Order: sequence, then structure tokens, then C-alpha cells
Amino acid sequence: MESIDAYWRAANYLSVGQIYLLDNPLLREPLRPEHIKPRLLGHWGTTPGLNFCFAHLNRVIRERDQDMIYIVGPGHGGPAAVAHSWLEGSYTERYPDITQDEPGMRALFRQFSFPGGIPSHVAPETPGSIHEGGELGYALSHAYGAAFDNPDLVVACVVGDGEAETGPLAASWHSNKFLDRERDGVVLPILSLNGYKIANPTVLARIPDDELFKLIEGYGYRPHLVGPSHEEMASTLDVAFEQIAAYKEGSERRLPMIILRTPKGWTGPKEVNGLPVEGTWRSHQVPLTAVRDNPEQLAMLDAWMRSYRPEELFDATGRPMLAIRETVPRGERRMSANPHANGGELLRPLRLPDFRDYAVEVKLPATQSTEPTRVMGSLLRDVIERNPRTFRLMGPDETASNRLSAVFEVTDRTWAAERLPTDEHLAPAGRVMEVLSEHMCQGWLEGYLLTGRHGLFNCYEAFIHIVDAMFNQHAKWLEACHKIPWRRPVASLTYLLSSHVWRQDHNGFSHQDPGFLDVVVNKKASVVRVYLPPDANTLLSVTDHCLRSRDYVNVIVAGKQPVLDLFTMQEAIAHCTRGLGILPWASTDAHTEPDVVLACAGDVPTLETLAAVSILREELPELKVRVVNVVDLMRLQPSSEHPHGLPDSEFDTLFTTDRPIIFNFHGYPMLIHQLTYRRTGHANLHVRGYKEEGTTTTPFDMCMLNDIDRYHLVMDVIDRVPGLGSKAAHLRQRMSDARLQARAYTRMYGEDAPEIRSWTWPHASSS
Amino acid sequence: MESIDAYWRAANYLSVGQIYLLDNPLLREPLRPEHIKPRLLGHWGTTPGLNFCFAHLNRVIRERDQDMIYIVGPGHGGPAAVAHSWLEGSYTERYPDITQDEPGMRALFRQFSFPGGIPSHVAPETPGSIHEGGELGYALSHAYGAAFDNPDLVVACVVGDGEAETGPLAASWHSNKFLDRERDGVVLPILSLNGYKIANPTVLARIPDDELFKLIEGYGYRPHLVGPSHEEMASTLDVAFEQIAAYKEGSERRLPMIILRTPKGWTGPKEVNGLPVEGTWRSHQVPLTAVRDNPEQLAMLDAWMRSYRPEELFDATGRPMLAIRETVPRGERRMSANPHANGGELLRPLRLPDFRDYAVEVKLPATQSTEPTRVMGSLLRDVIERNPRTFRLMGPDETASNRLSAVFEVTDRTWAAERLPTDEHLAPAGRVMEVLSEHMCQGWLEGYLLTGRHGLFNCYEAFIHIVDAMFNQHAKWLEACHKIPWRRPVASLTYLLSSHVWRQDHNGFSHQDPGFLDVVVNKKASVVRVYLPPDANTLLSVTDHCLRSRDYVNVIVAGKQPVLDLFTMQEAIAHCTRGLGILPWASTDAHTEPDVVLACAGDVPTLETLAAVSILREELPELKVRVVNVVDLMRLQPSSEHPHGLPDSEFDTLFTTDRPIIFNFHGYPMLIHQLTYRRTGHANLHVRGYKEEGTTTTPFDMCMLNDIDRYHLVMDVIDRVPGLGSKAAHLRQRMSDARLQARAYTRMYGEDAPEIRSWTWPHASSS
Repeated sequence: MESIDAYWRAANYLSVGQIYLLDNPLLREPLRPEHIKPRLLGHWGTTPGLNFCFAHLNRVIRERDQDMIYIVGPGHGGPAAVAHSWLEGSYTERYPDITQDEPGMRALFRQFSFPGGIPSHVAPETPGSIHEGGELGYALSHAYGAAFDNPDLVVACVVGDGEAETGPLAASWHSNKFLDRERDGVVLPILSLNGYKIANPTVLARIPDDELFKLIEGYGYRPHLVGPSHEEMASTLDVAFEQIAAYKEGSERRLPMIILRTPKGWTGPKEVNGLPVEGTWRSHQVPLTAVRDNPEQLAMLDAWMRSYRPEELFDATGRPMLAIRETVPRGERRMSANPHANGGELLRPLRLPDFRDYAVEVKLPATQSTEPTRVMGSLLRDVIERNPRTFRLMGPDETASNRLSAVFEVTDRTWAAERLPTDEHLAPAGRVMEVLSEHMCQGWLEGYLLTGRHGLFNCYEAFIHIVDAMFNQHAKWLEACHKIPWRRPVASLTYLLSSHVWRQDHNGFSHQDPGFLDVVVNKKASVVRVYLPPDANTLLSVTDHCLRSRDYVNVIVAGKQPVLDLFTMQEAIAHCTRGLGILPWASTDAHTEPDVVLACAGDVPTLETLAAVSILREELPELKVRVVNVVDLMRLQPSSEHPHGLPDSEFDTLFTTDRPIIFNFHGYPMLIHQLTYRRTGHANLHVRGYKEEGTTTTPFDMCMLNDIDRYHLVMDVIDRVPGLGSKAAHLRQRMSDARLQARAYTRMYGEDAPEIRSWTWPHASSS
Repeated sequence: MESIDAYWRAANYLSVGQIYLLDNPLLREPLRPEHIKPRLLGHWGTTPGLNFCFAHLNRVIRERDQDMIYIVGPGHGGPAAVAHSWLEGSYTERYPDITQDEPGMRALFRQFSFPGGIPSHVAPETPGSIHEGGELGYALSHAYGAAFDNPDLVVACVVGDGEAETGPLAASWHSNKFLDRERDGVVLPILSLNGYKIANPTVLARIPDDELFKLIEGYGYRPHLVGPSHEEMASTLDVAFEQIAAYKEGSERRLPMIILRTPKGWTGPKEVNGLPVEGTWRSHQVPLTAVRDNPEQLAMLDAWMRSYRPEELFDATGRPMLAIRETVPRGERRMSANPHANGGELLRPLRLPDFRDYAVEVKLPATQSTEPTRVMGSLLRDVIERNPRTFRLMGPDETASNRLSAVFEVTDRTWAAERLPTDEHLAPAGRVMEVLSEHMCQGWLEGYLLTGRHGLFNCYEAFIHIVDAMFNQHAKWLEACHKIPWRRPVASLTYLLSSHVWRQDHNGFSHQDPGFLDVVVNKKASVVRVYLPPDANTLLSVTDHCLRSRDYVNVIVAGKQPVLDLFTMQEAIAHCTRGLGILPWASTDAHTEPDVVLACAGDVPTLETLAAVSILREELPELKVRVVNVVDLMRLQPSSEHPHGLPDSEFDTLFTTDRPIIFNFHGYPMLIHQLTYRRTGHANLHVRGYKEEGTTTTPFDMCMLNDIDRYHLVMDVIDRVPGLGSKAAHLRQRMSDARLQARAYTRMYGEDAPEIRSWTWPHASSS
């Protein structure tokens, strides 16, 4: 116990040192103002509790040779996590300049929250972490994601009582209903009940103890309350790990969790300026704020740091004493060096079937229809079958709705709660994780990927906005990792967004929002990829590409409703490899400059573009039309902006520099302008897309409401191509009439007219 | 009880009719295929439970003359809510064409989920609703928002067991810790435990009853389990309302809630194609899907609808029987006609102090600094004081951090849980609502605004992305309301985003994301407004404007750190009224065409722009520089796109059509291109902004990391203005060196150089 206390004091000392000190790390002399950082940035409040848990968990690891990682939920645990990594030696292994001696300690202190140094949170730069302590709410779902398919792993997860107020965290306690006793590891939640957030008490600290216990029991855990005492913590951990063992053996249904009630800022200054600090919100950030200018505070800091008795903790060279080093587990058992927390080290490529085997046969383009996601489902089925322990499919209860049901031929939905005889495809070992929480799906998948596995998140397009903020944080994590050589690449996070804006026939306006793409493109080009495959074969090709990729966020937008097959498999591969290209069979500009370019991205816009072109070919046969389809949206950006960006010369060749371009887009039109504004022909570009018009109506009525329909596109062409004459003017009027008629038809009969629903491309051979 | 059952059967009958029937609404003849809609769109599963609750609550309203509104959490309750409004007569009052007779019933059935008709969800079009049943998770927070400051109101809130899995819903049970017994009303949650979501069982339906009870008790409620029985529901409601009365009297601490366990699709088809439907997920949507083509299913539908005994429910004209009409409350006591659910009817303008009284005195522009949000805090303090029951300030524990602490001079934080002697500014009647859940803040505020009150949400800029999806839904609600004449305007939802991307000194990369603006501008121009006041006086003017506005979402981005005061109050008003304008004292192009335009939006970019201009004036005095500051971002859009859009001629005059424009922007640079791509001079526009570079570092280092700093701006000018000669080339080199030096300084000393930190505008008089 004494060595645990020594370790804890060392970690606390190192934490305070990081927040305050530029120099004099071992306090060889009394602190002077010049030893103090000019800007005091960091957070003390949560740190001693984090250090306390880490110290005690290390004992358990050593005694049980336990495979364990540590997730730091509280926002500002940076100094703690860095201190442990340094004490365990892994910091020096990753950053050889930060040696385990006095110069190393000085550098360790100086770099924290310092220009050119390290961030104040637990960040990608921190060894042993898969969880950024910035935005709060995702600790538990990350922890469960790490535990899935790691049967011997325990993920210790400290949940701050501030974080516990967030929605995503509140929901994710229920992750235990998705945990398989045999196949999965265990999460040990530790609710750090220090009572305060930034400036307020926390809810869970101010409800009666019996309510708190009921809440935790209602979540399905066995709570253990621990006060600020080494003895209590040690004995409770022993009980908890016995319970975990009993659970793994099957003799216990519920898993334990720990409620650790300590003062916020524990062991820090008791009182500053006559106001209580330890045990209140005032210790949240930097308890002594005027150390450099105020001799009294400087003395308080000096006394505070010396209260940890550094002379007992570090030897003359600044190295941790042997007693402390001996409390540390060895090698990869160190939580700061556990390979699960640098998942790329464990990553194995997926065993992928040949996606070409799932190809839809296409004899003539645009003459038959397929549900693209249904075909993708077959591919995913076999991915799951071939990778029974390293791939999971997540979705908020929409896997079947998104027509990926083929996966249920080989697996079930993960479900460890009660089952009834009428249930279908529910099992603890199921590989499809469905819960009505996009936050949990995203958090689980992030945790799963960051520990070296693979997966895919399928979601209704509109509601992926629910995890905008989580996407942002994950993208930032990846962006930061690109600069950290020891962070090995992990599998990309791939979204399949289906049930998209154009086919919300059942749901209407609230389900229509294609704006996630706008959020995505703001992140660094080095991590984001966006694909809009227009048919089944292109979706297969894109999916295969995404499943092989590393360190990206891939967004695939694809329909679940039947769409026309446009590409043979071979053509689809070529098209997806180029990312965009001319549809020669639809174009009439063979080997010449076109009069107009009709571009499209997304399945429904592509269909309407083709239908418009068929009208133009019939009615204005002299008009030279080029049809360009875009699969890889990032191709539209200049090559200087995105690695997938098309060089200007190629863009100009494809889109021309002086002809009108009518771009029919799946999403909000401004995104296309945003991506192309630097292109030569941008002034000629006219974009159609979703403009926030919609309700529960027919698919074609949706197109008309937003002017992306075939008739309006023909009108757009006539309005923009000069010198088309009276025939075109007459056609324009007919198109306008056709819109009115189509609208009247749907309002009369409640569905789209048969000629709209059954439209296919009028190949010469078939006409 | 019999009349309740009759009402319930009538509502069920009307619900089924809406989903299926085009004609023959009273089943005067056996159903024929042509009576059936061609596309069957709607959701039956949750409907009978919703109808059941509504019927029983109506009895309570009548017996107790209870003021009550009804919030339908389950996603697809549209048919239910519409049925009640029609039965209560309010539908016909709002939509006179939908009469309470057979033709009206036919029209009611036909319009549902039909082109030109009404959406399938509970939508703004539905009388009596403040809650769209599209995206799930916000029912309870909306309910609490409605209950605040309505002491006599009971908000009955049906929570679907699917929705209950979402994060926002899981967290918002704890809203009861923020409810004041005296000043607020009561929320009665009814957990509709029908067991299934789209294709899965629900978590709460598959945990042991004792765990479910503990969970609810842990949330602080008294749960009552009710089975599918009129008697149980009626007696339990009587008990619950006695408990509510006891709570209001102070003799009871906890409020009741009801767990209603019924089969999903209750009273619908028991079995279809040999598979169980009632009581399973198969009744989620349309239980009989082939009615039009399959005579057997047609007969089943006929039998199903007749099982409600329509002949006992509607008279020969199709009007509800007297016995049913008599179960309905009168006038505004009808939940479908309660004015709280059309909050604009109750809205009174805020009593606003004169914002000019809070002005910062500015003698010379850019020579003194103020913390803008601190000044705004004084204004908000007096808004709170003058509107003690109709204005609330929401924030995720960041009100003090965002420097709005002046509000605590007159009020406290809302807190109804335990309080300790060391607490400060906590009280049940506090007007500042802080919980570490952006979802709850947003949900409470939406519920508060939609019931006719006012408020403001202050948040860290990066983390407002957490509620992107909620913003989307609220904006869509407002967009839809603009087309509904009887929906009266409500107060705008105003965000103050502070602790913004440029000043995350403590937090770093994870806290840096200015992309909420990109999400906002995708919504309709008729509802979104974005302001970036660069100093305290402009912030005051903008705040006053936003607090007076109606039916918008206003986003204000403003700093909490000291920034230079640029405008006197009078100038600020003029500047904000114009939305953008030249800073004459900084510009050197008096009455001529400038050589270059330096534009800026946001406090930090404006400061750097001014500092750059001061260098240019000193070093290249012959260069004619125009400085344009943009407060109202929507001014950049063409007037055809946004009501605030600047006409092209004025834009051209201001920004020129042929001179380089260096635009220093607060957010992601592409947003400015997106807003201005149609402007004449767009090709000359070069935008600087946040490009995902950052860490925990100094403010000026952050600027340099993203090239928005003064030195880089000077370099940008030199690179883009032709013919500046060798002096400029030399200056460019010095700027490049200055950047290196500034960087080296921060890395040496941990703070920005004094001349950077203390820079002010070098007015001639002071030099």
C-alpha cells in the first residue's frame, strides 16, 4: 500500500509540475517566479482522482497479469496520463528526448500546454490513450468498443460526474446489454464523483445515495462506493475483479462498477484567498492563479508540491525510485504501452471476398433496376463471415431498413438482454450492433477501430448529423495521428448513409438533410473521402475500396430503393478509379466540344439527368450534350487542396471552360460551388440540389419541389445554351407543362405517373 | 369508462383510416381495392398506445379542469395526433375544409402522407403539437422546457421505448433536478413500453422489471406500471395526479411517471402470413402491406376497421357521436387547442433595457480593450431582472466561463437538487440553466420558446456541433411554420457562441471548430441569421436585435477575451444596421478606388487585419487600402438568396470588382467563397480562416498556424497587388522573418511577445 501511495504522490507531483513549472523540477531550491510558466494552462481538479485509480489498477494488473487499458473520461486529464506514461517509461520510449531523469522531467513539465509542446488534454500524443478528453460523453462507448472481441481485456473507464450528465454518456451505460460474456472483454466503469464540473455541482453528486445506487443498478451494474482511502480502493478492486471473474465463469450476471467519491482537487490547496478550493469547483482548473506575481501563492505552490515528498519519490538524478518503478507492470502490460491503445499495431487486413463476384449483370446501361444497398448487403455478409472476430456492422436499428438484410443469413444482431421465442436474429454473439442511438453506434465503432479492428456504420442520412460533433473529434484524432510516427494506421471509419434525402417517402421533411457532407469537407483533406456511387456496381467498388483504406473517414451515400444499373462491373471499377467520368452512351458530343455539360452526383440526381438527356436527344437532336457523373466528390476540388483533386487541366477538359454546366447534385447546391470555385469554368456552373423543400410525398414530386427533376433540367439547359431558337422555346414550355401535369397526377392518384416510375434509357436497339 | 373506450376506438379507427383509405371512410360498403391508397405510408405500431393515453388524459382534464398539453415522443404518431384534433374539433377550426362529417373524414384520410397533403409525423401542421416526431430523443427536454414558468401546466409526455435508447432522452430524465415546485409546472412522463422499435426489441423492454423500476427511481421518479387495461390506466392516472397535487403542496418530493406496457400495434392484425404481427416489431409501420392487390388482406383490413364498431362511433353524417364528443374537454382545455402548444399566441415582447446604456466609451478606435461578453452579461442581467418569468439563459456549465457572470448579480443557477453551504448562486428559482448537456440546454430552450417565452443559449463554439441535428430540426420546424398561417411567430432561438476557435488557449485542437456556421447556412434563408460582432458595442447592438426578433435562429459569435473597442455606440448601431462597412479611420483610400481591400469578420481576424493595415500604412504609405468589416454574414450573399443579402451594385462598390480582396475570416475559409461565388469580384477574393491547424498554444501562434496573422496578411497583400516594387519585396521578407521570430519567442517564453499582446492602433494624435 505504501508503494501505491508513493506512486500516487509521484503522479500528483508530476501533474502539478506540468501545470506550473518551467524549471527547478525537483525543487532543489525554493520556487522562484522564473521557475513558473507565464501562462498557467491546465486542469488540476480531476487529476488526483485519475492518478489514484491508475495507481491502484496497476497493482491489479501485476497481481493478476491482467490485460487492461485505461480510458480517461474527464475532460482535462492530460497531466495525469502523461505523468503515468513517464513513470512507466513508455513516454521516454515514444519520445526519447523526454528522459527519465531531471532534464527529462524539466522538459516534460515545460512542454505541457506550451507552444511547440503537447496539448492539455489526453490526446493522440499521449501514449496509452484511445480517447481524447476534449468533448465529453464518449468514454463509456469507446470503452465498450475496445472491449468487444477482446475476451481477455478489461477496459477501466473513468467517467467524470460532469461527463455523466451528457446524453451520449447517459445512454451508453446500457452498452452492457450488447456484451457477450464469452467473446468480449469487460468494461469496469469508475464514476469519479468529485462533485463539481466547471462552476457547478454535478447532478449525480447531489442526489441521495440510494437514488444513485438505484440508477446504477437500473443500468444493470453492481455499484461499489469507495471513499478517498487506499484501503477502500484496494479491497473494492479486489472484490470487483473477483466479480468480473465470476461473470466470465458464468456464475454472476451483473458486472461491477465503482463510484469513487473524492474531493475535487484532492491533495491540492485547501483554501485560497479565504475561499475553500479543495473539494469545490474552484479547483477545476488552476487552483493558484497568481503564483508568478504573488509571493504568498508561490510559497503555497512550493509547499503543495513538497507535500508529496519528492525526495522520497525521485532519486538524485530525477529518476523514479526503485520502489515506484517496481509498482509498474512490465512491457505491454503497462496501460501506457498496451498495444490495444495503439490499435494499428494489432491491425490485420480484412479477409475480403472479391467484390466483383457480387456484380449485377448489366447488358445495356440504364435499362434495369437494382437496390444498391441490397447488393452491398451480400458483400457485407461475406465480409462478416470471413472475419468473425474483427468486423462489426453498426446501425441505429436501420440495417434491415437500409436493405442490408443479407447479413442476417450468417449472423445475428448483438443482444445480450432477454430474448423471446418470437425474436429473430438476436444473439449475444451477433455481429450487427443495433441500438437506437447514433452516439453509441459511433462511439462503439470508434473504440473498436482505434483498438485495431474494422467496421462500418450504416445510418439514415439525415440523422448522421446527430454525431457531427463525434465525427469532428474522430477526424481531429486522425489528423493529429498523421503527425505522430508511432501511431500506427487504423482502419478507416466508413459511413454508409442510406435512406437518403430523395427517398424519404414515408417520413418527409424532418428526415431530409444531406448536409453531413458539408460538415465532413471542413476537416482536413488528408482524412476525409466522400463517395456517391450512382448504382449497385459502383457501390460495390467503392465499398471494397473503403474497407481496405486506413486512417480516413469515408462517407458513402447510396440509395436503398431500386435505381437503374449504369455500369458493368468492369466499367464501374474504371469509373470509381477515375472518380468521375463521361457517360459515353448518354452523351452526344462524341470527339467534339459539347454545347452543354450535364453533370450529376448521387443516384436520384443521376437518374433525372439521364432522363433529361433522353428528352434533349429526342427533341433537340442537334444539341451536343456531355454527361459527366461524379462518384468521388473530392475530385472536384483542385489537386492543390485535396489528394484526390483533379488537376485543373483535366477538369477543364472534362467540364470545358466555356460551356454551361448544369450540375445535378445529391446535397445542398452550395457544396459544389464551394468545391469548384477555383475552376476555370466555375462561372458557367449552375447547380441544382436540395433546397430545403420537402414533405411526405412521391419521389418525383420531391425532385420537382427542389427543381432537380428531368423537366426542370431541360429547362435549365434551354435557359443557358444560347441560340437554341424557337423549337427549344417550345420545348421549354412543354417541360413546364409536364411539371404541372406530373404534379397534378401525384395529387390525384397519390403516386408518380407510370411513365416516370418505369422510365429507362431508350437505347436505339430497343426503340 | 365506456365513453373512454369509445373515444379510443374512434381514434384508432381514424388512425387506420388515414393510413389506408382514399374513400369509403365510414365503411358504408365492403372495402374495395379502389378505396385503398396506392402507396401505404405511415406507422401503426405506436398509434393505439398514443390514442389510449390521450383518451385517458382527457378524462383527467375534464375532471380536474387541468391545463395540459401532450407531447408525442414516438416517431410516427402523426395519425394519432391528427385523429384527436379532428375528434376535438380543433382540426376543423384550423383547416375548415376538413369538416367533422363524412366528406371531412374522407379528406382527412386522403391527405395523410399524400402528395399535397400532410406529413406522416406529428408536425408543425398538427394542432396541439410543439414537438416533431421525426428525429428522436428530445421529447422530455421539450416537455420540461414547456413546463418551466408555467406553474399550473401539466405536460404529459409520451416517451417511446425506442427513443428512450437515445442519449439526449436518457440524459433528460434528470431535468427534474431543475424544476421549481412553485414557479414551474409538472411533466408527467409516460414510457410507452410496447417492446419494439423498427426491427428490434427495445432495451428497456428486455431488462428485468426490478431493474427498470430502479432505473426510473434512480432518475428520481415514482414509477407506476400499467398494463393494457382501461381500469388500470384510469386508476393509475388518478393516483398520479394526486401525487402531483401532493408534490405541488410540498408534501411529496418525487413526481410520478407511468410505464405503460402494451402490445405494439395493439388491436391491429394479430397475424399476417402466418407470422405474429400485433405485439411484435412487424406492426411498426403498415401491418398489412398488400391490401390493394390481395383480397385476403383487403378483407382483413375491412374486419380490422370494423372491429372498432364505427357505427357506434360516428353518426349518419360521419360526425362523432355525442357520447364521444362529450368526453372531449372544452375550448382551450383541449390538448389539441391549448395555446401553450401554439406559443406565439401567448408571446409577449421582452421588456428590454436600452442597450445603449451599457455602451463602452470609445474615444479613439482600437486603443483600449474590453471583454465583449462581459459587457453583454450586464445587458442580460437586466433582461433577466425585467422579465423574471419569461426569459431564461441556458448553457452547459459555461456561463461564467463565457464571462456572463453579471447575471449572477440578480439571479442564480437553477438547482432543485441538494445544496451545500459552500455553494454559490444555486436556487430552484434561478434563471440560469446549466447542465453539462448541450442537448438538454437546446431541448429545454426549444420547449420554452415554442410555448411562447424567450431565451438565449450560450455555448463553447466547438461544442455547439453536439446539437447540429437539433438545430436542423428546429430550423425545419420554423421553416414549416412560415407556411402555416395559424402558427403565430415565436421568439427566435439565439445562440451566443463564445470561447471560440481562436482563443482555446487552455484546451487546444479538440475545442477548435467554427463549422456550426456552415451547418446553419444550409437552412432556409428565411430562418437563419449569423452575426460576428467584432467588439463590445457591436455585440450589444446585435444582441438587442436578436432578442427582439421572431421565428429565426440567430447565431452570434463573440469573444470573451479582451478585444480592441472599435466603434462608439452610435457607430456600432450604424455598422450593425448596415451589417458591414468600411472602417474609415483604418482605410487610406479616401474617396478613391483602393489598391486592395482587406475584409474581416470576427474579433480576432479583425484585430489581425487592423494590425496588418497599420504595418502597410507605415511601410507602404502609397498603397491605398480599404478595410471592410462584416458583422452580418448573410450580407455577403446575393440579395436574391437571402433577405439580408447586399445588392450586387452595393457589394461591387464596397469590395470593388477588380482589386484584390484579402478576407480574414473567423471560420472555415470555404464558407466565404460559398456565400460570395456569384459576386463580380469573386475571382479576386482570397480568404484566410481556420484550416484545422491548432493545439494548446498562444493566441498569436494560433493565428500564425492558420496564416490569419498580421504578418501573413501583409505578405498576402504584397503577393496580390501588382507593381509594388522592391520595397514591398523587402517588406515581405521582413514579415516572413517576423513570423519566425514570433514563433521562436512563444516557444522560448511560453507567451506572445509584448508588442503583439499590447498592440493598439497607432493614431496620428498619439504618435
